[in-house]
Amino acid sequence: MADKGNAVIGQSGGPTAVINQSLVGVIEELKKQGKVDRILGARHGVRGIIQSDFITLNDVPTDLLERIALTPSSALGSTRDKPDEAYCQKIFESFKKHAVEYFFYIGGNDSADTARIISEMAVKSGYPLRVYHVPKTIDNDLRTTDHCPGYGSAGRFVALALMGDDLDNRSLKGVKIDVIMGRDAGWLTAASALARHDEGDGPHLIYVPEVDFSDDKFLADIDRVYSKLGRCVVAVSEGIRYKAGDRHSLVTEKVVSGGEVDAHGNKQLSGTGALGDFLSDLVKSKLGAPLQEKTGSKLRVRADTFGYLQRSFPTIVSPSDAHEARLCGRKAVEYALAAPEGLASGSVAMKRISETPYKIETFPTALANVARQTKSLDSAFVINGCDIGAGFVKYAKPLVGELFRPGKL
Amino acid sequence: MADKGNAVIGQSGGPTAVINQSLVGVIEELKKQGKVDRILGARHGVRGIIQSDFITLNDVPTDLLERIALTPSSALGSTRDKPDEAYCQKIFESFKKHAVEYFFYIGGNDSADTARIISEMAVKSGYPLRVYHVPKTIDNDLRTTDHCPGYGSAGRFVALALMGDDLDNRSLKGVKIDVIMGRDAGWLTAASALARHDEGDGPHLIYVPEVDFSDDKFLADIDRVYSKLGRCVVAVSEGIRYKAGDRHSLVTEKVVSGGEVDAHGNKQLSGTGALGDFLSDLVKSKLGAPLQEKTGSKLRVRADTFGYLQRSFPTIVSPSDAHEARLCGRKAVEYALAAPEGLASGSVAMKRISETPYKIETFPTALANVARQTKSLDSAFVINGCDIGAGFVKYAKPLVGELFRPGKL
Repeated sequence: MADKGNAVIGQSGGPTAVINQSLVGVIEELKKQGKVDRILGARHGVRGIIQSDFITLNDVPTDLLERIALTPSSALGSTRDKPDEAYCQKIFESFKKHAVEYFFYIGGNDSADTARIISEMAVKSGYPLRVYHVPKTIDNDLRTTDHCPGYGSAGRFVALALMGDDLDNRSLKGVKIDVIMGRDAGWLTAASALARHDEGDGPHLIYVPEVDFSDDKFLADIDRVYSKLGRCVVAVSEGIRYKAGDRHSLVTEKVVSGGEVDAHGNKQLSGTGALGDFLSDLVKSKLGAPLQEKTGSKLRVRADTFGYLQRSFPTIVSPSDAHEARLCGRKAVEYALAAPEGLASGSVAMKRISETPYKIETFPTALANVARQTKSLDSAFVINGCDIGAGFVKYAKPLVGELFRPGKL
Repeated sequence: MADKGNAVIGQSGGPTAVINQSLVGVIEELKKQGKVDRILGARHGVRGIIQSDFITLNDVPTDLLERIALTPSSALGSTRDKPDEAYCQKIFESFKKHAVEYFFYIGGNDSADTARIISEMAVKSGYPLRVYHVPKTIDNDLRTTDHCPGYGSAGRFVALALMGDDLDNRSLKGVKIDVIMGRDAGWLTAASALARHDEGDGPHLIYVPEVDFSDDKFLADIDRVYSKLGRCVVAVSEGIRYKAGDRHSLVTEKVVSGGEVDAHGNKQLSGTGALGDFLSDLVKSKLGAPLQEKTGSKLRVRADTFGYLQRSFPTIVSPSDAHEARLCGRKAVEYALAAPEGLASGSVAMKRISETPYKIETFPTALANVARQTKSLDSAFVINGCDIGAGFVKYAKPLVGELFRPGKL
């Protein structure tokens, strides 16, 4: 069977609620096509490859695979390692040793870059390796594709969370600030706009990293909404940034001195409530007295940071997201096995071919089109620097799926 | 119709995911019995009563009522006002003015106390008022009743959140700390134990307010779990407290200087990430270096504070909780209208009459049995001061309902 070669699957970066759908998609398509011998799952991404920490996936029972597909987070384990030259050399040694000819890497733009480096090294060294990246990110910030598997379910969580939180803030009125994941792009924060059904529904203000943040405008916006409605729900991206001259700096940097930086040079934004608390204190200190004078009652200000729940909360997955994540896994195998037709290595992307009914098709694209770069939120979606418009809602609604519609008195 | 008298319904305190089930239960039973004239909803609890801010509920369409029943948070609005003598006098004036003879107040122990004060003033002044408290709290800390409507759904959120978070932390390993609501009682934090299915599943450590907190024990516990598993998920109540001599002090008090206090003298614990960040920094500073030396890799420590999502997130309600919240609303009407049989005023409580199948029945109890006091988590449920045992799981499982079972490789 050695003439068939083996396949390795890895998962990388921050998990999502549907990353295992892609994993199961790769496995089932590989089994269906029958052109590879062993299907090896690398534990914790590239780290598992260099440590030869593999699990054979050929014989995992179908019912367990289906349960895994419904389970959030990366079933194989993930990693934030960013392979350099020496690291990649070790990966090749492992691939050669294990007769690996197909590598499927499920991840974001950092992972696509890792896949690109490995595929280029393979080409250079004449090693017959086909590398396919399967897109995954709750941030929705990959280029080329219409959207990313993982985004719809995270967006669904955010929309439902904001819907519940707005109901909560109607009940006990105040200013409520919710901090949402998304280091460089505001896609996930923008999904909070889907929480709105009726006039007056929150979030009333939405701040994304694509718009320069200003404490003064933030305070003026809240003052305006609160003075009108007596309540205000605010969705804020963890990645909001100030601009001074030509330089952007994360608001979080002002708040957290020191702080952690990962192997990709990314500063830790999640897993801390610091930004929410800073914004909350800002509102209390600057608007507390004037709004109390204006309304006659004490200003109640609270902040929540949604944190890892956004990517890992079980049972509220978007149906289209689950379907597409699976599809992208299957298509990666189809494209890889089709070589020399098409691209020997690449990434799976999605194109929207119909709005009503919503319909997508996939296509292969070069790894370089996805690697490293990020796709910002379309600035046409942003209104007055503090809200998200109907264009975005039209774009995102089918990705997030039908949402609960609250009843109000 | 004036001989029939009118009824007022109010909702108070922190909302829950099923508090509107109780509201709809009261409305439907009042309509069914046909013994009151107008059914008035007080906007924002007692505040709506003194401001004569009522909405007539007799003619709200059934399909809207059913949608409201499924909607989290208090549809009538809530309040944290705690009526004193003068405030209660105003309530009576309003009740007299509006010919109110029945008052149904859906809330926690503070609300039960409000109900008690009002009912006692009514008795004293000879005003023919029947006051029934309908229990509601995510904290599950009311006396007399087996458990409280609202708790099961919040517990379901917490259990699912911890399940997802443990999967996340298996994928990218580290120490993860989750801060859970519950000012005085650890019931909600304990519900995190329901997230566990298999050996090695988190949360691995659970800290409740009923056990004195110690930084040193906390660190030793985490060190032990992390050294064994290479990962550690910790559930911590926002209400954990130190003991020095005879005095208890909230850990949060050490972290947040100043801080807000509400009308009930309660310190603000939710809506801030300060406690999680404090604990996270503590672990990083004390265990970072030794654990890095022991394991060879950098210790990753994150904290999330679940905040208001625990009580307001839509669509993941516990079925038994929804059913019982509705039932308690209906029974409050039944008990109130039965007078002079039984208690003219009181609170609805639940008794567990069978474990398999799980079954409860309701009974009326005096307001004084519920007012003000809190019911702590049974200390027999706590293991070694840092975990929750099988006794609790048996108690809480039917309240939270069947949970998703993750698939793992």
